[in-house]
Amino acid sequence: MSDVAVGLDVGGTKALAVLVTRQGEILDELRSSTPHDSHGGAGAATAKVLAEQVATFAQRHGLDAATLPIGIGMPGMVRRDGRLAFAPNLQTVSGASFPELLNESIGAQLVYMENDGNCAALGEYAWGAGRGIDNFVMVTLGTGIGGGIIANGELVRGQSGFGGEIGHMAVQARGALCGCGGYGCWERYASGTGLARLTLEWANEGRLPELTALRGGAQNVRGEDVTRAAGEGLEEAVTLMNDVAWWLARGLANLIAILDTGHFVIGGGLSVAADLLLPNAREYLADLTFGYDKRPPVVVAPSDLTVHAGALGAAKVAFDRQP
Amino acid sequence: MSDVAVGLDVGGTKALAVLVTRQGEILDELRSSTPHDSHGGAGAATAKVLAEQVATFAQRHGLDAATLPIGIGMPGMVRRDGRLAFAPNLQTVSGASFPELLNESIGAQLVYMENDGNCAALGEYAWGAGRGIDNFVMVTLGTGIGGGIIANGELVRGQSGFGGEIGHMAVQARGALCGCGGYGCWERYASGTGLARLTLEWANEGRLPELTALRGGAQNVRGEDVTRAAGEGLEEAVTLMNDVAWWLARGLANLIAILDTGHFVIGGGLSVAADLLLPNAREYLADLTFGYDKRPPVVVAPSDLTVHAGALGAAKVAFDRQP
Repeated sequence: MSDVAVGLDVGGTKALAVLVTRQGEILDELRSSTPHDSHGGAGAATAKVLAEQVATFAQRHGLDAATLPIGIGMPGMVRRDGRLAFAPNLQTVSGASFPELLNESIGAQLVYMENDGNCAALGEYAWGAGRGIDNFVMVTLGTGIGGGIIANGELVRGQSGFGGEIGHMAVQARGALCGCGGYGCWERYASGTGLARLTLEWANEGRLPELTALRGGAQNVRGEDVTRAAGEGLEEAVTLMNDVAWWLARGLANLIAILDTGHFVIGGGLSVAADLLLPNAREYLADLTFGYDKRPPVVVAPSDLTVHAGALGAAKVAFDRQP
Repeated sequence: MSDVAVGLDVGGTKALAVLVTRQGEILDELRSSTPHDSHGGAGAATAKVLAEQVATFAQRHGLDAATLPIGIGMPGMVRRDGRLAFAPNLQTVSGASFPELLNESIGAQLVYMENDGNCAALGEYAWGAGRGIDNFVMVTLGTGIGGGIIANGELVRGQSGFGGEIGHMAVQARGALCGCGGYGCWERYASGTGLARLTLEWANEGRLPELTALRGGAQNVRGEDVTRAAGEGLEEAVTLMNDVAWWLARGLANLIAILDTGHFVIGGGLSVAADLLLPNAREYLADLTFGYDKRPPVVVAPSDLTVHAGALGAAKVAFDRQP
């Protein structure tokens, strides 16, 4: 039983590696770019980057890759057997088996895979904003919406390991087309791309006149313009961010009805806009939640572990699943 | 540890009582009407009916109410402490504590409460169509949509015990007004009242011409007319039932995304229309489910325990929770 584990969080652009103690203390940290060529087969280039990160930790800290527990968090549908069934934002790695690839390259024997949202949930549960909360949902607001569900103190992995894909719950049947091929998915309304979509829609409808003038055309207004302007108090931008907050609350209220979630932890890239979104989302919950006044107050807390949540959770997976 | 338990399933019109062995065998069964006056305080009249059912079992089978485990399934928000927080279809019992009331009237000491959809899930898990399936969702299609979630082999009760209110997940934001005060709840589209609402809407729009002529006016066409006519192959009725099946699938697909449910058990009053709904709902799932082709086939099975699911599950609750 190793006292340390490696957590790898593989995103669409960066791979973050951490070396972590059983108490969740980060001893070392590395960042690399995620490669996007598929030379050598599905995932080979990505696996090479991860292997180098692990090898660097091993060398610096005198560890043996063969006995080092390694957890990998991946954006996509990760099967219980560790194979990546589908990764819409990392097409070159779909189908890859990283446990096999890392074994071949550096002799790693204890490699475990999990969805990145599930990792974030496990990280926050062990060492962050979900500590001691046996029923909570992690919501990662990034390009899309990911997440992970803790119920009865356990991660809800589901039949195949695909549990927690909360961003693909439809909140508007026959609504906006999603990258997954479905319509009306939550992430089309309350994520980074949701914000971008609403921004373009509003700008084209003439509902963002000042930003449109400033950027020299409706098609030039970006989601970042809206969050920045909303932070500075520009009314048209504040109004749009309120709409995003409403959609955020709409999805949270669904999860409350289904799971009786009393606690949410909000992370991911868009959570930089947390100050703009969370206070309003909390207020909208009162209107949108089934039996709201019969429940204890619902906590909507920002992530504690922020950018490290996924990598720390991946390390937790490695600690928990090693034999 | 008693070898038998009582399961009580309290509906809006009937209270069903069963005396059950640890193997799920029903030894005796009683049906009573649910009273709707609130004379004597919240739940007193209902508690009296339940006490009589238990007393009848005790007398017939030589049992002692004080040592007999009794489970009660209730439609509504049942708190973990056994108090009924809210029962929209049983207003006269909201706030009642049945463990206290049954203790006062017949000396019962082992009384446990649970939501009726959760009871049905536990019943099917123990002795029915969910046996051996550690991740499944029970869906009860009745007046509304109830349900219960089994994840990692355990019931998802959530923070307060209100888990599994899947009918109040919004599938159409700002859609049809629901009895709960919310908008666009799943049960407004795919339950008995959902069918009734769609029937009226379609009849008023002239989309049910034959049934409207037959019943002498759009306002006279009922949901039952549609299910009967659809069973006989009338095209306009078949088309409407397909729409209901689509909405049923829409909600199921959301639960698959969130929980990675590979198995559904469909029960409740409207499941008499299962032959009309389930085959089409299964087909629509292929279009509506996130990453459908990456998953094993999703099973949508009818309830095994049918009308007894809730009462049997209530007995299971009593067996499991007795000290």
